[in-house]
Amino acid sequence: MERRLRALDVARRAGAEALLACKTATVAWLTGSAAEIDSGPNPFSLPPLALLAGDEAPVLIVSDDDAEGAAATGCDVRAYRGFSVEPIDAVGGASRALAEVVGRRRVGVEAGALPVALAAELDWVDVGSELARARAIKDSDELPLIRAAIELCDVGQREARLRAEHGLTELELWARVRGAIESAAGARTPILADLVAGPRTAAAGGAPENRTMAEGELVLCDLVPRRAGYWGDSCATFALGEPTPVAVANHRCASDRLTRVLDAVRPGAIAGDLDALARDGLGYPHHSGHGLGCDWHEEPRIVPGSETVLEAGMVVAFEPGCYEHGEGVRVEQVVLVTADGCEILSGHGLEL
Amino acid sequence: MERRLRALDVARRAGAEALLACKTATVAWLTGSAAEIDSGPNPFSLPPLALLAGDEAPVLIVSDDDAEGAAATGCDVRAYRGFSVEPIDAVGGASRALAEVVGRRRVGVEAGALPVALAAELDWVDVGSELARARAIKDSDELPLIRAAIELCDVGQREARLRAEHGLTELELWARVRGAIESAAGARTPILADLVAGPRTAAAGGAPENRTMAEGELVLCDLVPRRAGYWGDSCATFALGEPTPVAVANHRCASDRLTRVLDAVRPGAIAGDLDALARDGLGYPHHSGHGLGCDWHEEPRIVPGSETVLEAGMVVAFEPGCYEHGEGVRVEQVVLVTADGCEILSGHGLEL
Repeated sequence: MERRLRALDVARRAGAEALLACKTATVAWLTGSAAEIDSGPNPFSLPPLALLAGDEAPVLIVSDDDAEGAAATGCDVRAYRGFSVEPIDAVGGASRALAEVVGRRRVGVEAGALPVALAAELDWVDVGSELARARAIKDSDELPLIRAAIELCDVGQREARLRAEHGLTELELWARVRGAIESAAGARTPILADLVAGPRTAAAGGAPENRTMAEGELVLCDLVPRRAGYWGDSCATFALGEPTPVAVANHRCASDRLTRVLDAVRPGAIAGDLDALARDGLGYPHHSGHGLGCDWHEEPRIVPGSETVLEAGMVVAFEPGCYEHGEGVRVEQVVLVTADGCEILSGHGLEL
Repeated sequence: MERRLRALDVARRAGAEALLACKTATVAWLTGSAAEIDSGPNPFSLPPLALLAGDEAPVLIVSDDDAEGAAATGCDVRAYRGFSVEPIDAVGGASRALAEVVGRRRVGVEAGALPVALAAELDWVDVGSELARARAIKDSDELPLIRAAIELCDVGQREARLRAEHGLTELELWARVRGAIESAAGARTPILADLVAGPRTAAAGGAPENRTMAEGELVLCDLVPRRAGYWGDSCATFALGEPTPVAVANHRCASDRLTRVLDAVRPGAIAGDLDALARDGLGYPHHSGHGLGCDWHEEPRIVPGSETVLEAGMVVAFEPGCYEHGEGVRVEQVVLVTADGCEILSGHGLEL
């Protein structure tokens, strides 16, 4: 895998002999082992770590609870005790496993994610920022995983349009959308989402509430589900019944900017220029887009002034919005940067 | 608040002048500020930290994105840049805020959760284990929060019984249960859960899948929702239609052990003795119970051999199970240890 070579190269350029991935997203990227994330920190275990030292597969340091899934990735696994009736000692277990695996080598780490309790015996150097940049270009074996996550977006967007109606609350719609996504995935699925209707759309998003949706209102639906460690992303905005002239105008503006910016995506394009093209005249309060992979927001960030140069193999979500006059519209598609342009990976409808 | 005094005392006994809470659960416990957890690590910010130094309210170190919610707790807030179109530098932002707030004081920390990138300038000592023990006894102002979380369990358990039927998949039932809980909470709600039916109950739990439930099968439903930083917990097992004689026998065993152990709960009871009483003859592969609060599993752990002594003010979930002959049953209730026994906080039905 190209990405393991790039990751190791990051560590070596920093004077380290090996790389210790500490972020859950980076561990998933290098190993395919996706830790559970949706119940918060686990009282029985620490997040997984992965040591990459050369041509061999990485070594995964996980608790017993994740050992079976970790072994299925083909990585070497060092497990410490997790869920148990014995005393809990995740820090001790992980520390001992780490010391055995790393030995006296200098390792590149993600210092923003490595617990200080595990660092005492390590000779480490922080390579977090460089590693984040190395994750921007996707390997060919990552693309089916990203496509599969985006398929879940498409399922959710279809369900949102099908089920949204006058009298339903945002949370009731959300339950149906999430249910459709999880049935399609065959599993519980972490999902980051904006799902708001009516005047709430003007604030560019938010979590669903017990607010009842009414005829003529806009529904802004931004769905970001995670499947097998990779995140999909998508946004559509549609009207319940007949849209107002303001909604039509805002939708036309946002859609126009999305078309224009996608037309300009190709290797060599500058992220800051793409941001300006998408943002032109709209003045929304967020980025124009971002990379997508094992994190729901990663490099390349499409933000004002960015000098990042797009390259083939990057996967980027573009999401211009127009939130004027109380009716917010955002449209978003994810693309793969190809040799001479881009391929749209999103399959959901963007009509109002 | 009693708990702030206890926490500060933990730090002082370790030779520190102040306490830096690093676990999301501990920060919620000391401040009332509950970080979002259900989309995994945030690319824009680090988890919140809280510094407790004396009689004044703790100082919360959070990103911009959490500053409004943090300020509503009455704590002093030091915010660094979060979600933004500017370059991302959560580690730098949090480090600078931390250095300002801590100064040259020696601080007790939770070293299993403090990122090493934030520890470079700190004079720290690990008090993680002692602090975990200090969280076992609840203050009076925590009890309404725990009761509110358990109410969500009751809502979910009621919905599970109401909606479960032959022909529905586990995931379809899960979507209805989660939807009912989130509508009752008025917000998206992190929920840890076992929801399995039929032969899957024999494995003591698991996440819902696309498996269709059939007449006569057992449904094992363990719901652990988080509301305002506090977790509820509950388990019931019920039959779709007429239960088998095995199911009836297993349910009788598990229910009997739950009744017996709750009868024995009082200040002075030993956790290991309670475990033996609940486990007697059943041999299930998990704990007999656990404390409940800002983590979904905390002290006192009701496990074999534990010498922990129960005290008034502890909140404990008891959950004996009987998984013999292919039909698993678990029943669980949460209690508050009172001066002379316990009060059952759970309101869900336990019938088969």
